[in-house]
Amino acid sequence: MDPEELKEKALKLHRKHKGKIALKSKVPLNVAEDLTLAYTPGVAHASLAIATRPSDIFKYTSKGNWVAIVTDGSAVLGLGNIGADAALPVMEGKAVLFKRFANLDAFPICIKSQEPDVIVETAKQVASSFGGVNLEDIAAPRCFEVERKLQEALDIPVFHDDQHGTAIVVSAALHNALALAGKKLEEEKIVVCGAGAAGTAVSKLLLEQGAKHLLVCDKNGIVNAAERYEHAHLNELAALTNPEKRKGGLAKAMDRADVFIGVSAGGIVKKEMVEKMNAKAIVFALANPVPEIFPNAAKEGGAFIVATGRSDYANQVNNALAFPGVFKGALKARAKRISKEMKLAASEALANVIPENELREDYILPSIFNPDVVKKVSEAVAEAAKTSGATK
Amino acid sequence: MDPEELKEKALKLHRKHKGKIALKSKVPLNVAEDLTLAYTPGVAHASLAIATRPSDIFKYTSKGNWVAIVTDGSAVLGLGNIGADAALPVMEGKAVLFKRFANLDAFPICIKSQEPDVIVETAKQVASSFGGVNLEDIAAPRCFEVERKLQEALDIPVFHDDQHGTAIVVSAALHNALALAGKKLEEEKIVVCGAGAAGTAVSKLLLEQGAKHLLVCDKNGIVNAAERYEHAHLNELAALTNPEKRKGGLAKAMDRADVFIGVSAGGIVKKEMVEKMNAKAIVFALANPVPEIFPNAAKEGGAFIVATGRSDYANQVNNALAFPGVFKGALKARAKRISKEMKLAASEALANVIPENELREDYILPSIFNPDVVKKVSEAVAEAAKTSGATK
Repeated sequence: MDPEELKEKALKLHRKHKGKIALKSKVPLNVAEDLTLAYTPGVAHASLAIATRPSDIFKYTSKGNWVAIVTDGSAVLGLGNIGADAALPVMEGKAVLFKRFANLDAFPICIKSQEPDVIVETAKQVASSFGGVNLEDIAAPRCFEVERKLQEALDIPVFHDDQHGTAIVVSAALHNALALAGKKLEEEKIVVCGAGAAGTAVSKLLLEQGAKHLLVCDKNGIVNAAERYEHAHLNELAALTNPEKRKGGLAKAMDRADVFIGVSAGGIVKKEMVEKMNAKAIVFALANPVPEIFPNAAKEGGAFIVATGRSDYANQVNNALAFPGVFKGALKARAKRISKEMKLAASEALANVIPENELREDYILPSIFNPDVVKKVSEAVAEAAKTSGATK
Repeated sequence: MDPEELKEKALKLHRKHKGKIALKSKVPLNVAEDLTLAYTPGVAHASLAIATRPSDIFKYTSKGNWVAIVTDGSAVLGLGNIGADAALPVMEGKAVLFKRFANLDAFPICIKSQEPDVIVETAKQVASSFGGVNLEDIAAPRCFEVERKLQEALDIPVFHDDQHGTAIVVSAALHNALALAGKKLEEEKIVVCGAGAAGTAVSKLLLEQGAKHLLVCDKNGIVNAAERYEHAHLNELAALTNPEKRKGGLAKAMDRADVFIGVSAGGIVKKEMVEKMNAKAIVFALANPVPEIFPNAAKEGGAFIVATGRSDYANQVNNALAFPGVFKGALKARAKRISKEMKLAASEALANVIPENELREDYILPSIFNPDVVKKVSEAVAEAAKTSGATK
């Protein structure tokens, strides 16, 4: 679809029903008795049950199926800091994805303030209605603080999708790409380009999975422990990666690397940089809508497997492969947080949706319309929630 | 239905689907193109439109059809201060009433804090998603402060249903009851029993409509300007009512009164007190579930017309006769607040749903299932929003 057509069609769809989300009643309200049961006086018994035994809120209300989509509108898609109101269409979109792929109910909580403590306090104040919190499009580094503080304040799972959703899908895709290339994660030289929400979470998850040779680049070059960074997450990344304390720019980092994972800005990787990578190079150029390098250029540079964030190329790295199943599993297990083990289980389950003998260079991730995705991911996450103690 | 059966059936209904509310997507999500339009990259155009022109939020999102049901759980039904979590079943019930009667979408915002400023700040922070705010079950006197401050902070209508919804339905019922009795509002001696949220709003609306002889009683007796009260709303009521500065208890107030409106506590009115009222006495005993006096006792005491809050007696004063139409009209007109004129218009329209020649002593209010109710009320409210300047 050309850009003008896309714009016209998208705006038309949004105008058609005025937005994308509506309420649905799960109970009949046709005769007076329906009202006496669903509302006063009958509803008082449900309230009293919860007042007596707080956990009954999961029995008598819809809390356990609702997810709050919390944003401050500070890092919305590729649009940047557009604020709470302008973020609403994106959050409504996220809500209908939750419904479509996980049959979960989700509601946009677009917070006017961009102060971490106000975001945390507001989300905490309104948490009664929700079984989980999906943090969305909150800029780094405040997203790290918001996620940590909010999870400390709540006993329902808090999950920043731009971090962990991306990390789960990237790591699953990488797992399958490495299998096709006959390579091993522990041995590969990996460059993560971008040290924001996604880059940080991708790096940490790959390290958890056994990656040993990992460099993170931000716009100032390779993150390294010889530097002192203003933001805590960069110092943390520096301590976890780059044991040789290498310095330099992205081109230097990519020289003889096996894997490039871009979660940064469109167009910053040139074909020549891919040419300097090792044989059977894996290039995930995930900046959206313009990738770090387009697939054809990456292939010309010798890349063996290329993935992007776009639906119009093969191997789309799409968070919708992860968050519906992660929340479905977490809510089903009534997890109180998303443990590391749950993320690892989600990644493994997602990778395994495609049987190894069906993997191809242009088929390292399943379609989001494949119903096995949410099924396998949610089952694995629910199981890991229990075994990792995240339900306690 | 006997109380045990009611309890069992109500809890069963709430367990059946785990609560009462779900999300519904208004857009199809069946093929990849659907996602590119409803979510990324297409959704960016809706966000950009809003970032450029803030009022476009009503065009491209569902904001204009969503109502926040905001409570702090401090005065829930007859249950009192049960808190945010235990209030959730009631707020879900309110949400499905909004859907059923006005085809509006509503979502429970149950706020943990009971500090007025925190309630206001939280509701303000999350207002992007909503076209209006229904305050619900917030105890007096803090409800007055919360409503005032929140309306000052927002440019969408804020409406405390326990105040104004009740006042609209009571005044409509009284209008019809007086017509049947051949009496005039201005001439009648009216006793409002209860000086909380409902009693205060009922008194003010009746004064707006022309009532001249109005006494308000709280548990300390007739509110009068000779006293200095701790709470501002009582001093205000004292200044607006009881010009003769009468003192005494409820029995004294009811002696030779024409109208009794109870929004207080069950069982506090005895048959003998009704006997001392004037001929063709009108008794609205609205405490729930136990009215101030049961209809049969009031009738034995000589009452001409009796109304209660219960669905199992004639003349049910039910807020669901008002709030769906009020919000539907206000949101349709895109009102920025609920003006006095909008409340008066709602009351008049509701009263007029029953043609005068069809009024009977046991039929002074229409059924909430009568589709004319929301139609007439919403049309009148939308019109009054425009003419009273509440859309500016």
